[in-house]
Amino acid sequence: MTIGDFLLRRLEEAGIRHLFGVPGDYNLTLLQQLHDSGALEWVGTTGELTSSYAADGYARLNGLGALLVTNGVGALSALNGVAGAYAEHVPVICISGSIPLRSIDRGLGMHHTMADGNFDHFLCAYAAVTVAQARITPRNAVVEIDRLILTAWREKLPVYLELPSDIAYLEIEVPASPLVLAHVPSDPERLQTCIAALAQQFSAATAPAILVDTDADRFGVAPELVALAEKLQAPVAVINAAKGVIDESHPHYLGIYAGKGSEPGVQETIESSDCLLAVGYRPIEVTTGDFTATLPARTIHARAHAVDVGEDNYQAVTLKEVLRGVIDAIPQVATRVQRPVDAPAARMHVEAAAKLTQSAYWQAVQDYLRPGDVLYVDNGTSFSLLGLKLPPGCTFIGSINWGSIGYSVGALLGALTAAPERRHVLLIGDGSFQVTAQELSTILHHDHKPAILLINNGGYTIERGYLGKTEPYNDIANWAYAELPKVLHPGASVQSFVARTCGDLQNALAAPNDKLVFVESIMDACDAPAPITRSSNLGAELDYGPRGPQHREGLQLR
Amino acid sequence: MTIGDFLLRRLEEAGIRHLFGVPGDYNLTLLQQLHDSGALEWVGTTGELTSSYAADGYARLNGLGALLVTNGVGALSALNGVAGAYAEHVPVICISGSIPLRSIDRGLGMHHTMADGNFDHFLCAYAAVTVAQARITPRNAVVEIDRLILTAWREKLPVYLELPSDIAYLEIEVPASPLVLAHVPSDPERLQTCIAALAQQFSAATAPAILVDTDADRFGVAPELVALAEKLQAPVAVINAAKGVIDESHPHYLGIYAGKGSEPGVQETIESSDCLLAVGYRPIEVTTGDFTATLPARTIHARAHAVDVGEDNYQAVTLKEVLRGVIDAIPQVATRVQRPVDAPAARMHVEAAAKLTQSAYWQAVQDYLRPGDVLYVDNGTSFSLLGLKLPPGCTFIGSINWGSIGYSVGALLGALTAAPERRHVLLIGDGSFQVTAQELSTILHHDHKPAILLINNGGYTIERGYLGKTEPYNDIANWAYAELPKVLHPGASVQSFVARTCGDLQNALAAPNDKLVFVESIMDACDAPAPITRSSNLGAELDYGPRGPQHREGLQLR
Repeated sequence: MTIGDFLLRRLEEAGIRHLFGVPGDYNLTLLQQLHDSGALEWVGTTGELTSSYAADGYARLNGLGALLVTNGVGALSALNGVAGAYAEHVPVICISGSIPLRSIDRGLGMHHTMADGNFDHFLCAYAAVTVAQARITPRNAVVEIDRLILTAWREKLPVYLELPSDIAYLEIEVPASPLVLAHVPSDPERLQTCIAALAQQFSAATAPAILVDTDADRFGVAPELVALAEKLQAPVAVINAAKGVIDESHPHYLGIYAGKGSEPGVQETIESSDCLLAVGYRPIEVTTGDFTATLPARTIHARAHAVDVGEDNYQAVTLKEVLRGVIDAIPQVATRVQRPVDAPAARMHVEAAAKLTQSAYWQAVQDYLRPGDVLYVDNGTSFSLLGLKLPPGCTFIGSINWGSIGYSVGALLGALTAAPERRHVLLIGDGSFQVTAQELSTILHHDHKPAILLINNGGYTIERGYLGKTEPYNDIANWAYAELPKVLHPGASVQSFVARTCGDLQNALAAPNDKLVFVESIMDACDAPAPITRSSNLGAELDYGPRGPQHREGLQLR
Repeated sequence: MTIGDFLLRRLEEAGIRHLFGVPGDYNLTLLQQLHDSGALEWVGTTGELTSSYAADGYARLNGLGALLVTNGVGALSALNGVAGAYAEHVPVICISGSIPLRSIDRGLGMHHTMADGNFDHFLCAYAAVTVAQARITPRNAVVEIDRLILTAWREKLPVYLELPSDIAYLEIEVPASPLVLAHVPSDPERLQTCIAALAQQFSAATAPAILVDTDADRFGVAPELVALAEKLQAPVAVINAAKGVIDESHPHYLGIYAGKGSEPGVQETIESSDCLLAVGYRPIEVTTGDFTATLPARTIHARAHAVDVGEDNYQAVTLKEVLRGVIDAIPQVATRVQRPVDAPAARMHVEAAAKLTQSAYWQAVQDYLRPGDVLYVDNGTSFSLLGLKLPPGCTFIGSINWGSIGYSVGALLGALTAAPERRHVLLIGDGSFQVTAQELSTILHHDHKPAILLINNGGYTIERGYLGKTEPYNDIANWAYAELPKVLHPGASVQSFVARTCGDLQNALAAPNDKLVFVESIMDACDAPAPITRSSNLGAELDYGPRGPQHREGLQLR
């Protein structure tokens, strides 16, 4: 079998059905093999940064994603997105069609290289942002391709693979058996001891609780966590990055925990728990209410492949096996105090003719959400989605830790490709949209029909809460956003709206979703939801310290 | 003086008057200092990749360029452009507003990091693509800022500087004297011996010649090379990457040397020279006619800071001092055979109603060029500019070695900022344009008036000559390109044209340049100039080797 065909076969066996990327002379051999085999579908993007975002978005719904770029120029353009996959724990395989082995052997200067005689620069750059890397040769192809795919899947982290352009068509001996995506099973003794320790802790507890970070999603244990919560009659809170991982209409769902930035009632419950199970918890300033989170001293930290309980650290145990064992080992708790039913959120009265504000906007967005939606936030005031109540079955896609503006447009393309049958709703601001706006072209080209809700407020409002309330460096050029779809896809069947009033927005959101819906909502640059400004103001203290300029009169949106 | 103000002062002393970039919370302190001091002008871009391209384009005309990005997400998005500056020998200073030292001290998880407790990832990634890197602290600020700026300028290579967000407003003792951009003077003995050796070689030669690569431009020795050619009555050829470095109307200008891909008469002259001076010569497959270049055995290799003459290697000599010394040391040659005057290029007759073709297009572009233009090619059939004759005083801006598509749009913004008084003409194809199209917004926002000549031929035609003549992976979505300026800058005063016939193109190119001129020329996907297909076909042999699919029937545009 040729090396290229083997790579494509392994990707397919790993459940990948689409490959995102940009053609370049060094990857055309693999593209031709893909075209000839018909195995995977090629989704060409306008640039490699959005390829990497698309592979990330695809992996979030599909379990694994991949992109194909060309040596150097393509690989480095994708680096930010691949690093984001690392920060957000998403398994992405970045394949770079690279310079021929012949040129490396002979030390030949080639285009798309640094032209300095060193061919390892891009492997080095990727070593900084991926969990494993390799340059494929005919000798290592079988071992390395399997290693990289399995490592990405098992660790839920990105990997980088260079495929030299002159070996894709060379034949090697390959195993007949398919690649099986499976975790290495737990060590039996460690697993049993760990389960017993956790069961003992939960049985002795009077106020157990569960705190969920994104790894619960990545390692697919949300059902086990809900089952455990039901058996314990315990509340479950999530970190903001794990929004939507636990069904928010479930009676045990508590809300977002973020220290002093928690949703009402959550902080007390989590911090006073006498047996808190924290799943994959990673304290970042943006997920901890700027480090105001204080987990109880006796918190059990369960990670993907290890558990920390008091003095004991259990290695070689997988999260799913641990949770299933604990569920089986503990008795059903009959009654525990239920959390009070939420009072229905106070609704503000909205005049149709009134100028659109952020408060009216987010109330309208709340009403727009439907069960089963895939929801995207980009960085900015769109973070307000975190404060909305998600209907059952929704998936939340964001880049909370990494926080790269423009991520969501590429991720939207990727997740649309993975699950075209679902409704996809993108919440984005103008500053983020401008980074990757052209990927809307690919979304239209593939006839996808997401709803894109764009806030046009003249710049980086979230930054105005850090510094530069009205300074010009936070302003951006104005676009006729709602006109863009028809330029990027002439003749496209798109419903575009510009909303300046609450009535305009209601009208736009009432449009049927049988076409792509694009709503540009115009709002004031200094209109920001209170949680956003509060978080930005706190962030400025952390970022700039006591000598920073954030306290100077009028420099900060509050 | 505060650290931030000192950094800005040093940039200004180094001749930098504009800073490109994207705001982010970690760089807002420096942005505020820039705003307060009014020293440099901030040019916000839509994303960081184009910031890096803009800084590169700016540096090509200004001698040094800089960009300001934010930690991680911004820095990595700029990496491709900074690596390109390395490959193309352009001095660019990439400043990343980075996470506070406080967080590094305390090991705190912060957004825009990999959230894994390691804060050096981005320094590592940049170590792969820059000549020097540093994280600024109050202790090292004076030393490191000067080191990085001087190193970038002396080596004509990019550097990377991390400025933690909590130290920009801290005060340090700084030197009163300004930063002086100067090379370390040559070692006197080495210089004199080197000059004598070169003078001896030139005096003994019967057919001296000069071959110029890009370093002649970067180190500013084009005037010396012309003076040397005049004194020797010797012909001067350039590598394609150095197009325009030598005035093409000068009687000693010979043309482009690229082995078998040379312009007529150039290969014989260069390869039969008995004393060839090669300046900064770097053999890359795309600059050597796919390695068909064969320099004479006795070639003198002069580099920026060293000269190779036969058995001798001279270190600690600077190029300009060597060349000036040689010019002084050799006698004026009275008569040498002049190169024959070019026959005027045969003009094809063009019917106004005829469908536009690449041949008609490039003939029209040739007529469009004016003395003093700044000319940009992006990668693709726009490389045809290399075959045109440039009027005096033109500057050519391209990314020949690195070859990153989309580079030129960002570079255009940068070079427009450096030299707004010149006419700027961008030659670009649809595939390249789609990568960075939104930067047109910034160009319009700053009221620049370049001419943008875009070829819409449905995809990556240059790749079709490698592989995939009609395969869909080389196709891209069609845009209404000519409509884009008014979406990106509503109300913009722009002259947009769509040319389908030769007459349409003539009409468009006749438009006065008092507004931005945007011409979309529609051509066939398989219409490619012969030098482009020849080079792509040869490239495929190098890239894919004997087992590659390039020989299969119909897979390659020829």
